[in-house]
Amino acid sequence: MKLSTRHLLGIKDLTREDIELILSTAQQFKEVLQRPVKKVPSLRDVTIVNLFYENSTRTRMSFELAERRLSADTLNFAASTSSAAKGETLLDTVNNILSMKVDMVVMRHSASGAPHFLAKHIPAAIVNAGDGINEHPTQGLLDAFSMIEKKGTLQGLKVAIIGDIMHSRVAQSNIYLLRKMGAEILIAGPPTLIPKYIKEAYGVNVTYNVMEALQWCDVANVLRIQLERQNQPLFSSLREYNLAYGIKRSMLEKLQKEIVIMHPGPINRGVELDSDVADGPHSIILNQVENGVAVRMAVLYLLANREN
Amino acid sequence: MKLSTRHLLGIKDLTREDIELILSTAQQFKEVLQRPVKKVPSLRDVTIVNLFYENSTRTRMSFELAERRLSADTLNFAASTSSAAKGETLLDTVNNILSMKVDMVVMRHSASGAPHFLAKHIPAAIVNAGDGINEHPTQGLLDAFSMIEKKGTLQGLKVAIIGDIMHSRVAQSNIYLLRKMGAEILIAGPPTLIPKYIKEAYGVNVTYNVMEALQWCDVANVLRIQLERQNQPLFSSLREYNLAYGIKRSMLEKLQKEIVIMHPGPINRGVELDSDVADGPHSIILNQVENGVAVRMAVLYLLANREN
Amino acid sequence: MKLSTRHLLGIKDLTREDIELILSTAQQFKEVLQRPVKKVPSLRDVTIVNLFYENSTRTRMSFELAERRLSADTLNFAASTSSAAKGETLLDTVNNILSMKVDMVVMRHSASGAPHFLAKHIPAAIVNAGDGINEHPTQGLLDAFSMIEKKGTLQGLKVAIIGDIMHSRVAQSNIYLLRKMGAEILIAGPPTLIPKYIKEAYGVNVTYNVMEALQWCDVANVLRIQLERQNQPLFSSLREYNLAYGIKRSMLEKLQKEIVIMHPGPINRGVELDSDVADGPHSIILNQVENGVAVRMAVLYLLANREN
Repeated sequence: MKLSTRHLLGIKDLTREDIELILSTAQQFKEVLQRPVKKVPSLRDVTIVNLFYENSTRTRMSFELAERRLSADTLNFAASTSSAAKGETLLDTVNNILSMKVDMVVMRHSASGAPHFLAKHIPAAIVNAGDGINEHPTQGLLDAFSMIEKKGTLQGLKVAIIGDIMHSRVAQSNIYLLRKMGAEILIAGPPTLIPKYIKEAYGVNVTYNVMEALQWCDVANVLRIQLERQNQPLFSSLREYNLAYGIKRSMLEKLQKEIVIMHPGPINRGVELDSDVADGPHSIILNQVENGVAVRMAVLYLLANREN
Repeated sequence: MKLSTRHLLGIKDLTREDIELILSTAQQFKEVLQRPVKKVPSLRDVTIVNLFYENSTRTRMSFELAERRLSADTLNFAASTSSAAKGETLLDTVNNILSMKVDMVVMRHSASGAPHFLAKHIPAAIVNAGDGINEHPTQGLLDAFSMIEKKGTLQGLKVAIIGDIMHSRVAQSNIYLLRKMGAEILIAGPPTLIPKYIKEAYGVNVTYNVMEALQWCDVANVLRIQLERQNQPLFSSLREYNLAYGIKRSMLEKLQKEIVIMHPGPINRGVELDSDVADGPHSIILNQVENGVAVRMAVLYLLANREN
Repeated sequence: MKLSTRHLLGIKDLTREDIELILSTAQQFKEVLQRPVKKVPSLRDVTIVNLFYENSTRTRMSFELAERRLSADTLNFAASTSSAAKGETLLDTVNNILSMKVDMVVMRHSASGAPHFLAKHIPAAIVNAGDGINEHPTQGLLDAFSMIEKKGTLQGLKVAIIGDIMHSRVAQSNIYLLRKMGAEILIAGPPTLIPKYIKEAYGVNVTYNVMEALQWCDVANVLRIQLERQNQPLFSSLREYNLAYGIKRSMLEKLQKEIVIMHPGPINRGVELDSDVADGPHSIILNQVENGVAVRMAVLYLLANREN
């Protein structure tokens, strides 16, 4: 089986079959990663560049590890030490890199749509590792993988997405994916951080009451307050945010059921999530990180194989 | 055959035979790079450090790829995250690195002559990846390789070097190389950006009329305006530079012949080169980038082999 | 034989047997590093992350080379381009990295005790590559290795540690190690840079007269003035420091014997050490750097093996 697309730009462009193929391939790679020898020779003759125009720890390392586990040659490029400082266009930078016989580009960029623009102009496969406030498709996929691992299926699963929806590419990728796979979605958070059109645009329900969302859901995907993307503060203080919208252990104890707590990281402890929730028995946050490597291996493997 | 030199500090020190040896070796590596498996085991037990005291995308990545394709072990060192910040001398830094059994040093430095200074004091082979406004020898070699690939020979080839000659190490390396190989050279650009002594020093002709240079030449090597190396602006505005000295499609259309357009990158689009020239049928700019990896493989291979 | 500890946090926690095991293992790796093929497959299936929250050239490169010579997979993480900028806690960052199946963490941090804190909370082996003004254990070990290589034994060896003791983690690791191994220690330097309690705390002698220390010792380990760690200048000027406490050739010539000069680098030439001493026949400064790779290979090898 092959993916229907040459790039992974966003979940928006994937079919249900694409998503199932990636998740089942990731399951096989996850088994590889449990072995003492975690490496497979699948991409031995493939060169991949990680082109990061925004800071990142976990995503860059996760991709780099995925590439190494697949035996690919990997090159890192961080914008701050690069020709970007000399005013070169993104397209020129990428065309230059590709002229050096690089096969795939993993890119993160602060401009929404940057990878989509590139995909129209270059022959190599592009994997979007986060573009502005648009999408973060491998995060959406690893979230889905982690939900299925814990709850068996996405079909009919009740997922609450909680917090700063406005500035979150993770929220967007989750919404696209969960809808395609038959999950039910409830958006929760402060009115200032939830786009007004979201119900009409995506057919999701909205509440401004976090406790209501917790009572409804099987899984709560709690998002990071994206302070670094807000031009002006949308909340009077982080402390106030925590009081009104943060997830605390006392809230989980009031529920008559077990729910799963997820977070894409990095966590603002004591803001959107209290430490005893982040580190508690309901949390699968570190499983998400672990699954990220397997999911990225699957994406890179399937895109590289499509070319041959 | 072996190179006559232990280092590649500049084209100035190379013999015609050295240049021919590097270019013919690069031709063989270019063929390797067309294959699905682009790696050769030639430098399997060689460790190379890339010591970059100036920002760079294409040159650093090109060297790193060349090293990997040769199976060398490669270490990267960017000055901003280094002991340079602690005031260590360049010689101490390099001696420390070499004590760790590193075999070769690829270095870029903002001070002209920095690699020549080092070469007098250390035993390892040094490859100059650009020193101040002095030389950028691998760029000179890849430009030569690209001209020969397109036009067959350098002997009698008419090459115009156009733009900011004053701040360009690329111009200097091109002039040395083209003269040694029997090409004819015409320097063109604004009087403020062309050193006054250049005709006497290098035996090249000079014109301040870019159109005249285009009419004369077979190949136009258009240089980047090195804004970052000018202490005070040498031109009233970039827009004005473009009007007077930029290469536009209309200019090429007026010629009664085909000429080849080259540029070492990164391009200031709309300043020294309009986009429809940079991306047009006359341009071999991306071929230059591709050839850079093969040329650098040749240089590293020949210098490493000389030691054994 | 196995180490008594799962981590290398400081020399303080090592037994005399641990130190002997590391040094004898390093001797074997030093022999490997003299060969044309410097690589061994010992850690082929081990992934190591180098987590550097402080600038470093020699230590980071030395660890990276040690890891590569052992065939480990190695990932680099510099704090400035990371999620640390997004306010993530150290523990969250490391837990995330470990969730990606990383086996060992080499870390440098400006906070004393940072690796000890981590060691209590994570399962992976941690190697302290310098924590604040606390310890730099691999430097202590490579200093010991270099002293033994030159003088045969540490037992009864007279070692003067000279200079900025107050801000030096190297001094602390040297004192712990030399005392465990039976060397005699004399601390020398300006009163403002020597902690008042040091004689009582560590049982070492102190002098404020550097010439006296040189006359007494077999080995002088001269420390770097840690300008970057001083909140207010502890000396009126570097020139004045050099006059009163710097080591000059004339001082060595007045001695009736040969002494060994060491320095952990980077050297402030003309401050704590004049150039003709640093580069003179008594100096083993570059041997220290060379031995650093072998010592770090030994530490990584022994810690990785302890897990299996």
